[in-house]
Amino acid sequence: MLVLPELRPSERSGVAPFHAMDVLADANRLKAKGVPVISLALGQPGAPASSHSLKAARDMLEHGVVSYTDAMGISPLRHKIAGHYRSAYGIVVDPAQVMVTTGSSAGFNLAFLVGFDAGARIAIAAPGYPAYRNIMKAMGLVPVEIDTGPEDNYVLTAERLAHEHAKQPLQGVLIASPANPTGTVTPRDELERLVQFADREGLLFISDEIYHGLVYGEAAASALEFSDRPLVINSFSKYYCMTGWRVGWLVLPKALTRATERVAQSLYISAPELSQVAAQAAFDAKQELDGVRAGYEINRAAMIERLPRLGFSGIAPIDGAFYTYAKLPEGYGTASEFARRVLHEAHVAITPGLDFDLLHGETTVRLSYAGSPASIAEALDRIAAFLRA
Amino acid sequence: MLVLPELRPSERSGVAPFHAMDVLADANRLKAKGVPVISLALGQPGAPASSHSLKAARDMLEHGVVSYTDAMGISPLRHKIAGHYRSAYGIVVDPAQVMVTTGSSAGFNLAFLVGFDAGARIAIAAPGYPAYRNIMKAMGLVPVEIDTGPEDNYVLTAERLAHEHAKQPLQGVLIASPANPTGTVTPRDELERLVQFADREGLLFISDEIYHGLVYGEAAASALEFSDRPLVINSFSKYYCMTGWRVGWLVLPKALTRATERVAQSLYISAPELSQVAAQAAFDAKQELDGVRAGYEINRAAMIERLPRLGFSGIAPIDGAFYTYAKLPEGYGTASEFARRVLHEAHVAITPGLDFDLLHGETTVRLSYAGSPASIAEALDRIAAFLRA
Repeated sequence: MLVLPELRPSERSGVAPFHAMDVLADANRLKAKGVPVISLALGQPGAPASSHSLKAARDMLEHGVVSYTDAMGISPLRHKIAGHYRSAYGIVVDPAQVMVTTGSSAGFNLAFLVGFDAGARIAIAAPGYPAYRNIMKAMGLVPVEIDTGPEDNYVLTAERLAHEHAKQPLQGVLIASPANPTGTVTPRDELERLVQFADREGLLFISDEIYHGLVYGEAAASALEFSDRPLVINSFSKYYCMTGWRVGWLVLPKALTRATERVAQSLYISAPELSQVAAQAAFDAKQELDGVRAGYEINRAAMIERLPRLGFSGIAPIDGAFYTYAKLPEGYGTASEFARRVLHEAHVAITPGLDFDLLHGETTVRLSYAGSPASIAEALDRIAAFLRA
Repeated sequence: MLVLPELRPSERSGVAPFHAMDVLADANRLKAKGVPVISLALGQPGAPASSHSLKAARDMLEHGVVSYTDAMGISPLRHKIAGHYRSAYGIVVDPAQVMVTTGSSAGFNLAFLVGFDAGARIAIAAPGYPAYRNIMKAMGLVPVEIDTGPEDNYVLTAERLAHEHAKQPLQGVLIASPANPTGTVTPRDELERLVQFADREGLLFISDEIYHGLVYGEAAASALEFSDRPLVINSFSKYYCMTGWRVGWLVLPKALTRATERVAQSLYISAPELSQVAAQAAFDAKQELDGVRAGYEINRAAMIERLPRLGFSGIAPIDGAFYTYAKLPEGYGTASEFARRVLHEAHVAITPGLDFDLLHGETTVRLSYAGSPASIAEALDRIAAFLRA
């Protein structure tokens, strides 16, 4: 018998799993068996897209043809997005620099591919969104993780960035504010210092602003308030409640716009047209969406009140987003074991910290409170009962 | 004044534009001014998704929440796709090996990233779909283009592949059948020889089957009929008329499944959920979709009859898909100039061959006939009038 050569995945595909997605798959298997799982595992609003967006999508389906669009996205949506920068931040953005993307996922891919060649070193904060690290690895880039913690409010500072750059030059830096998994907002003056440092030293500044609009104190600043050189990534998934629609946007520095368009033409063709049309209507739904955020404030208060009493500690400042990041109670083994038990015994899906922090992640968990206040209260009840048992 | 370091796109983003997408953007600008452009530029059905798919999407919007799904896709759709292999080809595919993707675009990205490390050499036929070459370049891979033409019916043979592999080893081969831009089907016995060669030599065989279902003679064979080692890419865009929905699928060899899932979790999260639900219903719409294909047969006959009389020559055998690939008439300069003039003077968008063939592409054009018979007849009338003028 002929023995065929072994098929093997590439080295670069040896990225860590996105544990939250594995938890989702596990939770979906339980749900399919009829188990009433509540999910705090994903950064996903429990609320639907706004009635404006749903109506726009339904209207489009009346006519039926859903087509490829320009790789940059449909023109009216690009203009709406540009207008949003004027109204939300008081800054002028040219629609020609706005690209509609297939979620922020496509935004990260494009930013990393167009911003950097293989081998480039990009600073990111740890803990942080795991896809940064994983996409960088797949693209041949070197994520330089800078450890942050309760002592610095989980904020990566310009001082820390400069220190790292002095040790070995960086080609880029990515800052998320509000951050995932912590919810921490980088203060305005610190963000300005970071942008200025990057500009001066020739680092590409990538600003992940997908949780803008979900801040519970002072509004988060956009990196574009300080310079026209940052590359901004945003999304309709979070504030706009449109995760499964897969639609987001980039604001590109002029020097990178055409290259990004060219790469996107081949890598994506275009973002889903129906989602683009629905997203366009989302800008008219501020009142409705602010109502959804009001529910998150209730959930956030419940988390802040109840988690410490349940034995969670070291909770990151929840300035924004819809996450609580905390050390798990003692005596439950690793975070992965804890999360698995909470899912199978309490039927609440939570994410082990390992997704976000390779160093300390087995001692932490992330709880998303983007569901309805009733579901979050019920989830906390179940976790409490599990911990008592 | 402080002069900041220049921002520059990466080397790897220096891919060729996808000219068809640039033509689309140009055509859309004309349309926005009220010019009644007919587009033969994109591989895009004029017909909407089936009534079954539209109804499924509308029903989902009644409930409203459109969410992330498992990275592999929703389970019922994966089972439907597996069932399709049984009914269409008589072969058994495990739903566990089926991944739903954000169009075939995501399928190509994932196949190239998981199948190969940077520097790998992958054989493709020229002329061919430009995104193959462009994505490979962005991913650090080396497309090895093997020239085909009228003399070999535009079919890349196992003999040619072996010859290339002997000169310098290849790590993979990608075969599209029916092919874009030619529409040519690789004969069953030739496809079997290609798969067997790849298996024996340890090349990853990637089979682009996105035009299956659109064949006007004998049905195209799937690479999975000959081996369980090929990676198959397919899409709901073409036969199923769902381009702008951005949904397709992969059938993965077992050895690559988990790695592909891990990479997809970070690069895509998931395909759009509404599109997945609509795609699931598409398998019940065979009669309706075969009706759309019947329109393509009328268009194909019109192309075959009229194009030679208009001075087009060397037309590739149109076994399948919905493209005509031909040498343009003499005396009109390059294909890019010809396409630009036909767009601006005759208001018909066509694609210069440069997208598909870097060597000979300035002498050829691709005309997509996926529109309605009335629109295709009108487009041919306009081209005829332009050529007479």
